[in-house]
Amino acid sequence: MAKLAILGSGFISDFYAKTLLGNRSRDEIVVVYSRNEQKAKRFAKTHSIPRWTTTMSEAINDPEVELVVNGLPNNLHLNSTLACAEAKKGILLTKPLGRNAEEAHQMLNSVEKARDFSGYLEDLVYTPKTMKSIQSVKQGALGRILWARSREAHPGPHSDWFWDKEQSGGGALLDLGCHCIEIARSFIGKDIKPLEVMCWADTQVKPIEAEDHAIGLVKYQNGAIGQFEVSWSFRGGMDLRDEVMGTEGTIWLNHFLRTGFEMFTAPGNVGYVAEKAESESGWVFPVGDEEVELGYVNMFSEMLKCYEDGTSPTETFYDGYIVNEIMDACLKSAKSKKWEPVQLKTWRGLDSVEKLSKLINYDDQHYLIKEEKLPNGSIKVILKHKVSGKIIQIEK
Amino acid sequence: MAKLAILGSGFISDFYAKTLLGNRSRDEIVVVYSRNEQKAKRFAKTHSIPRWTTTMSEAINDPEVELVVNGLPNNLHLNSTLACAEAKKGILLTKPLGRNAEEAHQMLNSVEKARDFSGYLEDLVYTPKTMKSIQSVKQGALGRILWARSREAHPGPHSDWFWDKEQSGGGALLDLGCHCIEIARSFIGKDIKPLEVMCWADTQVKPIEAEDHAIGLVKYQNGAIGQFEVSWSFRGGMDLRDEVMGTEGTIWLNHFLRTGFEMFTAPGNVGYVAEKAESESGWVFPVGDEEVELGYVNMFSEMLKCYEDGTSPTETFYDGYIVNEIMDACLKSAKSKKWEPVQLKTWRGLDSVEKLSKLINYDDQHYLIKEEKLPNGSIKVILKHKVSGKIIQIEK
Amino acid sequence: MAKLAILGSGFISDFYAKTLLGNRSRDEIVVVYSRNEQKAKRFAKTHSIPRWTTTMSEAINDPEVELVVNGLPNNLHLNSTLACAEAKKGILLTKPLGRNAEEAHQMLNSVEKARDFSGYLEDLVYTPKTMKSIQSVKQGALGRILWARSREAHPGPHSDWFWDKEQSGGGALLDLGCHCIEIARSFIGKDIKPLEVMCWADTQVKPIEAEDHAIGLVKYQNGAIGQFEVSWSFRGGMDLRDEVMGTEGTIWLNHFLRTGFEMFTAPGNVGYVAEKAESESGWVFPVGDEEVELGYVNMFSEMLKCYEDGTSPTETFYDGYIVNEIMDACLKSAKSKKWEPVQLKTWRGLDSVEKLSKLINYDDQHYLIKEEKLPNGSIKVILKHKVSGKIIQIEK
Amino acid sequence: MAKLAILGSGFISDFYAKTLLGNRSRDEIVVVYSRNEQKAKRFAKTHSIPRWTTTMSEAINDPEVELVVNGLPNNLHLNSTLACAEAKKGILLTKPLGRNAEEAHQMLNSVEKARDFSGYLEDLVYTPKTMKSIQSVKQGALGRILWARSREAHPGPHSDWFWDKEQSGGGALLDLGCHCIEIARSFIGKDIKPLEVMCWADTQVKPIEAEDHAIGLVKYQNGAIGQFEVSWSFRGGMDLRDEVMGTEGTIWLNHFLRTGFEMFTAPGNVGYVAEKAESESGWVFPVGDEEVELGYVNMFSEMLKCYEDGTSPTETFYDGYIVNEIMDACLKSAKSKKWEPVQLKTWRGLDSVEKLSKLINYDDQHYLIKEEKLPNGSIKVILKHKVSGKIIQIEK
Repeated sequence: MAKLAILGSGFISDFYAKTLLGNRSRDEIVVVYSRNEQKAKRFAKTHSIPRWTTTMSEAINDPEVELVVNGLPNNLHLNSTLACAEAKKGILLTKPLGRNAEEAHQMLNSVEKARDFSGYLEDLVYTPKTMKSIQSVKQGALGRILWARSREAHPGPHSDWFWDKEQSGGGALLDLGCHCIEIARSFIGKDIKPLEVMCWADTQVKPIEAEDHAIGLVKYQNGAIGQFEVSWSFRGGMDLRDEVMGTEGTIWLNHFLRTGFEMFTAPGNVGYVAEKAESESGWVFPVGDEEVELGYVNMFSEMLKCYEDGTSPTETFYDGYIVNEIMDACLKSAKSKKWEPVQLKTWRGLDSVEKLSKLINYDDQHYLIKEEKLPNGSIKVILKHKVSGKIIQIEK
Repeated sequence: MAKLAILGSGFISDFYAKTLLGNRSRDEIVVVYSRNEQKAKRFAKTHSIPRWTTTMSEAINDPEVELVVNGLPNNLHLNSTLACAEAKKGILLTKPLGRNAEEAHQMLNSVEKARDFSGYLEDLVYTPKTMKSIQSVKQGALGRILWARSREAHPGPHSDWFWDKEQSGGGALLDLGCHCIEIARSFIGKDIKPLEVMCWADTQVKPIEAEDHAIGLVKYQNGAIGQFEVSWSFRGGMDLRDEVMGTEGTIWLNHFLRTGFEMFTAPGNVGYVAEKAESESGWVFPVGDEEVELGYVNMFSEMLKCYEDGTSPTETFYDGYIVNEIMDACLKSAKSKKWEPVQLKTWRGLDSVEKLSKLINYDDQHYLIKEEKLPNGSIKVILKHKVSGKIIQIEK
Repeated sequence: MAKLAILGSGFISDFYAKTLLGNRSRDEIVVVYSRNEQKAKRFAKTHSIPRWTTTMSEAINDPEVELVVNGLPNNLHLNSTLACAEAKKGILLTKPLGRNAEEAHQMLNSVEKARDFSGYLEDLVYTPKTMKSIQSVKQGALGRILWARSREAHPGPHSDWFWDKEQSGGGALLDLGCHCIEIARSFIGKDIKPLEVMCWADTQVKPIEAEDHAIGLVKYQNGAIGQFEVSWSFRGGMDLRDEVMGTEGTIWLNHFLRTGFEMFTAPGNVGYVAEKAESESGWVFPVGDEEVELGYVNMFSEMLKCYEDGTSPTETFYDGYIVNEIMDACLKSAKSKKWEPVQLKTWRGLDSVEKLSKLINYDDQHYLIKEEKLPNGSIKVILKHKVSGKIIQIEK
Repeated sequence: MAKLAILGSGFISDFYAKTLLGNRSRDEIVVVYSRNEQKAKRFAKTHSIPRWTTTMSEAINDPEVELVVNGLPNNLHLNSTLACAEAKKGILLTKPLGRNAEEAHQMLNSVEKARDFSGYLEDLVYTPKTMKSIQSVKQGALGRILWARSREAHPGPHSDWFWDKEQSGGGALLDLGCHCIEIARSFIGKDIKPLEVMCWADTQVKPIEAEDHAIGLVKYQNGAIGQFEVSWSFRGGMDLRDEVMGTEGTIWLNHFLRTGFEMFTAPGNVGYVAEKAESESGWVFPVGDEEVELGYVNMFSEMLKCYEDGTSPTETFYDGYIVNEIMDACLKSAKSKKWEPVQLKTWRGLDSVEKLSKLINYDDQHYLIKEEKLPNGSIKVILKHKVSGKIIQIEK
């Protein structure tokens, strides 16, 4: 059983509290902090939390509190983390870690210096589908991973501060790209070094300063490519999909809009359909249990177990820092219009890895390029001569 | 926090234990019973259960035990329930309630007489998709429900006793039909009386006595139809789908084979794909978190909350009894080859309900039958004269 | 090259004409008949047909006409067929063949006596997906067929005469069931005798005399079951799906609402989405090329080739007659509330066929019932002793 | 009726011939050319073509031939086009137009100078789904187009010459990227100028010189982005999908692997499943009618109609040339690792177009950024002050 403080009373904190206290939970939130008194009170009441405060340090230093769950806006991540470190309290912090790699590195150092327990709340790595997929990939179901695309696109975030670059630190890239980058990294291998990035970003629709649409490629040392696509101007709901391509297989994940739950409703009295759903009548696509499908349940379950066991969770401040560095390089690339190196102040993975090639012997003299069944039923084989390099085909 | 005994150490008990102790559960299983010592030991070890026994009454009467979770084969449901009632212990019993309505009614009476807490572990009514769908239907998203199809088909159950009619009490109809019937009932309205049934059942493939394939219709007092399709000889995995049709809308649920998780794997090192998956290479369709998707998490969460609150869960022994009566009528119909009445010894829903019709006024003289946009862009309207009954069409 | 007359100028005749003259067709429609002069003229103009008439016999007896394509309402099928037979003109007639088996048998006899070419325009057997599926089934991809479900449900037909029982001869069963029954027959084997049927039919929603919803089972001599589900009160578009279950495999076909074409449109300026689409904004599901996807292109292509080659098409008046007999039995069953025999005045398939069972040897002493991989990775095998019949399980 | 010569007897020529002569075609292929006598004979026999030759000019100059359908390998496109121009014969040429923009421009000039009819056989713009989608986009169903992703990935081409850079002129980018680029262009608007490109390309798997995987972005003058993803090392079949994102809507097209046709087959006697299918047992995903679904039927139908009517088809040599220029810039970018300009020697679209922004008035003082329904049922609105630029939120 863990005793928790929660910082923040917005959309994400609400999701966190519902998850932490959901089902048959043994855990307890003992205090909530919000700078807005009314919201703090309402939040405490909704979730039956005994205490509330409008003073952050009061929540953090509450003697009963072991761990702080932090759902504050991006501009408050650094200070709240430093406060936790100072108070020697463990911290679970929402994504992205920092508004930039500079902040993130400072946060990483502070929690590690304080030897506090820390977790990076990257929920989308913890969805049931993603966890099972990553496990299959580790077992070799897809062979060597070549490419991982992660896409998160919706009609824009639900709180004012996201849209204000000062508070949020950025646009769709920072808000959503952090998810996509870490998902691709998890499939490609978190010990494989990200080398360089290429990114496009633009403000195509919304009357804001930051980008509302960005696409990027992250090149890893083994030649694999992580691809992210993020947008705040997608129409149709929340598009949350991943695709992974390996030498021996493929994975397609659809986390939200097509999960085997389809409804046509003429009147549209469906209630809440799903996060960022755009229509309430006609064909709609609800999600069964959002807290499960978005990974919150698995995430907190693992984080709190690790806290109790004294082990390290799958997603740590170190991962958050790596992601921030990749995003910084992306923003640079969006401006410079060329590939930019990822410059890691701290790296704990493999230092070098070979770029593998895969020559399949067909016979003594030839490599196999491919074989395929044709419409007429025959098999065509494409071969490359081992010495001359000449490419031939045989029909069987 | 609830202290539980678990009866049985097979496939379903394993699912139950994993769910009850999963995530951050506050609950505890204090003893497990299995008639097989080796299995009892192994089960206790796997789930860190302090005590095991090969004597059922020892588990039930364990002084620490408040509630008994019962995952035993069908032929043991009656006796174990009577034992719980005698011991004044609450009971949560797996489906189907009895091998027939006679047994089920006896069980219903015994737990009600003992005033014990009782729950019917009909998990598929508790899947996140089903719960959200039922809620939408209650809010009117689909208008009046006309038809609900529930299908469960797979290549056959995992334990020997299912295939032995003496122990199981029946075939695919009893094993799977109980799910489908209760799902349809939940959509149509559990207070609407089931009047009569028509059922086909046959042993098409398997070398067994009982049916391995059955299809049935259940007619409700308001004219709605519940349709079930169950099979032990389906190929391709576990086909678990529901379809609901209302005057104003439609719901399609796919719980297993198409949930937005698709994998192609040439080598096939995927690990456990999903319950009753049939292939391990090529295109496979794993399920994210089976305990969630099959409803176990929501089911136990609600059951244990109701136990603590002293309220009644969604699925009770009474529901299990109704389902057994419907299945008995189905088996009768399969033999008599005609519609057979559902004869309820106990009924607590509405005694009568009008069969509604729906006349939509188009203008003073006509009812609207339908309107549709044609390929050429015009709108065709079909009308019925209120007095003459004559049907005409207008093109707009 | 074929010279054709077309009878009728409604929705279906329009589809026929577009298909017959579409793409790079070598065929020609030389005359159109409609009892309504304005419609006849408009139809001729739309499709560049040189002649039109309001006298049916004029079209049939037009000296240039070789073949008559008949898209008239059901109550005119018999007389127009007799007129073609008398005029010694080939006929391609829309479904259902007759309003009942009596009419259908008379039509079958008349065209066969006149030795004219005749085709039954059952388009849904000719969809690209259905044709390829039937071919796979014939090659053994699914083993022995156990069950075929065909579903056609939509919000109701587009012309007034469908809704008037005198003209149409019936309701949703006659209109849509004829498709579903022939599709199931095509998968199960058209030489396998349909023995008996069980059918439910009701008028749940529409203010009409005939049923707007019907469900039925057709039992074939080899034990296979054809299942149809038809409705004129479905909401959400046109639901056109088939499912086939064999001892070795499964086929799922979705012909309309989920074909890999998905659109979200806030304004809804999509134009014509698809036949019987119900919504024009939000998520909509258009169909690529309806004439192809609904089987019209393949159907006319085969029919006209057979006409030129002097061979028999896949779908003949004989097939239409069999379907009418099955539907008559269904209507009888809907009233009698029991299984009713299919009484065939003419049958040209197999007279008897064994109901196969399938015993798979596991070892000398046991038959295999099933095997399955469990979550813990072990394999469980269920066996039946050949002599004692005892069922056991082994875990490997 | 058109009289055609066909150049080439490989996989693509076979598809072309089947399509041209399929259904009730009025057209005729009078001669086939292949440099290999045996293949020429076999091709002529298969498709009932009266004449065959191993001399290309003989086929082109055949006096009966009006139009030449050219399915030759890439390295023969230029010379065969020049030969057609000299012979004053119309030409329909397979994709890509040239091995590079230099060749393509020469070909464009030669056919235009000769005033011959010419068509660029970009079939994937003609799939039924794509054509209907483009029409919807033109009608405004999606608002302003922001992004179009087109993906073609499969396990590699079926003929040896594709894999030999000398003959093919390139790798996956040239082979597949030409499709994807033109699809995106068709959605974004073919009169909108492509300005610059960014491309990554690598040889990750196959033992070849050219790239087997490439990803690129094409920036258009109105700010829209075309994205292509092509690979010869995808596993699971042929992945052919498009996604389009507009300010008011979204389109998702799946042309091959998920089209509503799903089969599980244990024995795997399915016959030919689909082009580049990788598995023949387990779950497989056939395609109904490949010639239709891949656009061949619509493409030739339009091309030959335009030829007869003296009009210009949707896809011309000019389009092929633009695509070649974009691909040349992509190859340059893959090496330079930065955005590269698209340098068009010929441009016939708009010279300039404004990059539109979209300010939606909420009230006199605010622009609307977005509104969304929250889980608790309230509506949150995000606004931007017109003067101060301050962003606020209101909860309704």
